[in-house]
Amino acid sequence: MTTGSFLRATAFMLVSAVAIGHAQQEIGVPVPPLGNGPFVFDTAEQGKIRVTVVTRGLSHPWSIAFLPDGSMLIPERAGRLRIVKNGVLDPTPIAGLLPVRTDGNGGLMDVALHPRFAENRLVYWTYTKPVENGKGTPSLARGRLDAHTLTDVKDLVVPDAYEGNGGLNGRVAFGRDGMVYFSTGGNIAKVAQDPASLRGKILRLRDDGSVPPDNPFAGRTGYRPEIYTLGHRNTLALIVHPETGVLWNNENGPNGGDEINIIVPGRNYGWPIVSFGREYPGPRISEHPTREGMESPLVAWLPQIAAAGMTIYTGDRFPRWKGNVFVGSMRVGGIAGTGHLERIVFNAKTEEIRRESMLNDLRQRIREVRQGPDGLLYLLTDEDDGALLRIEPAS
Amino acid sequence: MTTGSFLRATAFMLVSAVAIGHAQQEIGVPVPPLGNGPFVFDTAEQGKIRVTVVTRGLSHPWSIAFLPDGSMLIPERAGRLRIVKNGVLDPTPIAGLLPVRTDGNGGLMDVALHPRFAENRLVYWTYTKPVENGKGTPSLARGRLDAHTLTDVKDLVVPDAYEGNGGLNGRVAFGRDGMVYFSTGGNIAKVAQDPASLRGKILRLRDDGSVPPDNPFAGRTGYRPEIYTLGHRNTLALIVHPETGVLWNNENGPNGGDEINIIVPGRNYGWPIVSFGREYPGPRISEHPTREGMESPLVAWLPQIAAAGMTIYTGDRFPRWKGNVFVGSMRVGGIAGTGHLERIVFNAKTEEIRRESMLNDLRQRIREVRQGPDGLLYLLTDEDDGALLRIEPAS
Repeated sequence: MTTGSFLRATAFMLVSAVAIGHAQQEIGVPVPPLGNGPFVFDTAEQGKIRVTVVTRGLSHPWSIAFLPDGSMLIPERAGRLRIVKNGVLDPTPIAGLLPVRTDGNGGLMDVALHPRFAENRLVYWTYTKPVENGKGTPSLARGRLDAHTLTDVKDLVVPDAYEGNGGLNGRVAFGRDGMVYFSTGGNIAKVAQDPASLRGKILRLRDDGSVPPDNPFAGRTGYRPEIYTLGHRNTLALIVHPETGVLWNNENGPNGGDEINIIVPGRNYGWPIVSFGREYPGPRISEHPTREGMESPLVAWLPQIAAAGMTIYTGDRFPRWKGNVFVGSMRVGGIAGTGHLERIVFNAKTEEIRRESMLNDLRQRIREVRQGPDGLLYLLTDEDDGALLRIEPAS
Repeated sequence: MTTGSFLRATAFMLVSAVAIGHAQQEIGVPVPPLGNGPFVFDTAEQGKIRVTVVTRGLSHPWSIAFLPDGSMLIPERAGRLRIVKNGVLDPTPIAGLLPVRTDGNGGLMDVALHPRFAENRLVYWTYTKPVENGKGTPSLARGRLDAHTLTDVKDLVVPDAYEGNGGLNGRVAFGRDGMVYFSTGGNIAKVAQDPASLRGKILRLRDDGSVPPDNPFAGRTGYRPEIYTLGHRNTLALIVHPETGVLWNNENGPNGGDEINIIVPGRNYGWPIVSFGREYPGPRISEHPTREGMESPLVAWLPQIAAAGMTIYTGDRFPRWKGNVFVGSMRVGGIAGTGHLERIVFNAKTEEIRRESMLNDLRQRIREVRQGPDGLLYLLTDEDDGALLRIEPAS
């Protein structure tokens, strides 16, 4: 019996090692193709909701940026940047991206608009940059969007590269201070704790990629001056709280221990010294999940939910959801076919009160969740035939 | 916004404070009445399973004991001990129980047979004993079962009583050493840490209720000699591992932090000094969820699942489930209508590998799960019209 368990465990570990963040059918429940919808679900505090398939045909879409005209920029993991306008997927991808490494983890990922995009048309994106000898690294680039073409394209940050598929993810967000915040995956040995490495960090940069002199480690010997925070395993969401302006991230634990963190400059978030999670074969990452001198997560998940995109709702269409945090889940506890949308309620002191799991019956990997200009929620499914979903009240 | 969240949070806290472990419709999704079934579900590692409603009409049934003739003893929370024989619920409850306090938490709960039941017909049960001035305490009693009547009925342990609804739960199990292990709820102030109190403990007794001289604290000043382990908030499952013979429990955290523990004599399990959970209004129970000198849980849940009955599967009917731990869930993250069955896979070193959530679509509060003599799994739903369910392979 235990031998059988262990063999299955080992198989799972190997699968996970090569395909973290990708669909794993080896262990899971059958996933029916996403129907045409709309789908209506009961929710705990907002009555019935309707989920509409806005468009499909997106190959592993990763994130959403809303353009001033209401259309959306949506990167596909395989390296195409798409436009959805008036609910229609433009068949022509945007030209001018830099080459993207698309094997294994990573690919083309996040996209963000410059705060003055309307004037300067600057678009920022994160992608896995291919490096010699099969290495790769999560990089930040920017370009100027003219119709369907990016011009003046250049890399702003190209962190240290490693072989393998670990830590290739990156997210980008603009702070209220006008600075660019860029997260880099760090689940490679102990690089997340190495102040001389840009991996496993959140970096703070000017909009041209230069380093602001007031960064927390600027001028400290042995520290890269771009570093804003350390000790991140694999950040899959990086957002600015719409009310406080404070930066929040979420990151994937290994087997257990996904977490949401409030990002405080200069702090260490612990990976791989402390974690709520376990290595895939079973041993705990650390005897204790927290310790003095390391930031404890605001929210932790046991088991892990393969947390992805995150948003904090501020609209008027779902009055009971105001201030709630929404997180996409791609897979719960290592079981394929269990992706869903999580809703977390906090009190006035940002202390967790409860969590709701939604859209479970769709069995989709929810990669991204964003609030639209119309106050509705928009989701992306991380599937070969990925879909853009819209959630609206149905009662 | 935050005010709204806080008000909802406060309402939830008050509800929880008076109704922990009971159905909470205040915040939750609509729960359809349980259909007639059978219901077929996909599972991650055991293909399709069929869930059959064996019988209904059980009012908040709490636990199952299998009699030598294959029939089942099933206590109902309201104080009736029922028999299900050949799948039929006997309309006549067993007579002779001691009076049970049935308001609020607790009631008639667990039942266990003496290892030599076939010879001595001794039955042990846990119940909330009414005490003067509206106080109550989880107590252990035993009696001799003759047909439909219990005789020679007496209390074996009557712990200290308190007002209110906290910590009224109790479970009972026989160890391979022939001793009786009895858990007592302890979510009342700090009694779980008080060595002079029998609450918030697991107790070890001879089958007649007397104290064995080799108990870990026997003879230690200030310690009740019945104590086997300390620091338990509210144990809702107490079982002996069918392979190792080691005692396991699970206990409910407050808001977050349900846990499974491996019970080691003389150890302190931390409540309320350390916990993975939060108080219902939001503040953490402890800055760090674990600490030196206190036992860390084998498994913790974030959010909480309102863990209830637990069993470790050893049968042949579900080959892929051998050695898996099954735990009933009554409500996830404080949201009514989210009860289900959890399956946890461990490796050969009893390190967690993954968890599967099953039977979610039934939306039932699963109070108990036991392996039957036939190698199938039997569940009880904690509802007004509670049901006995049987799970069998369907593929």
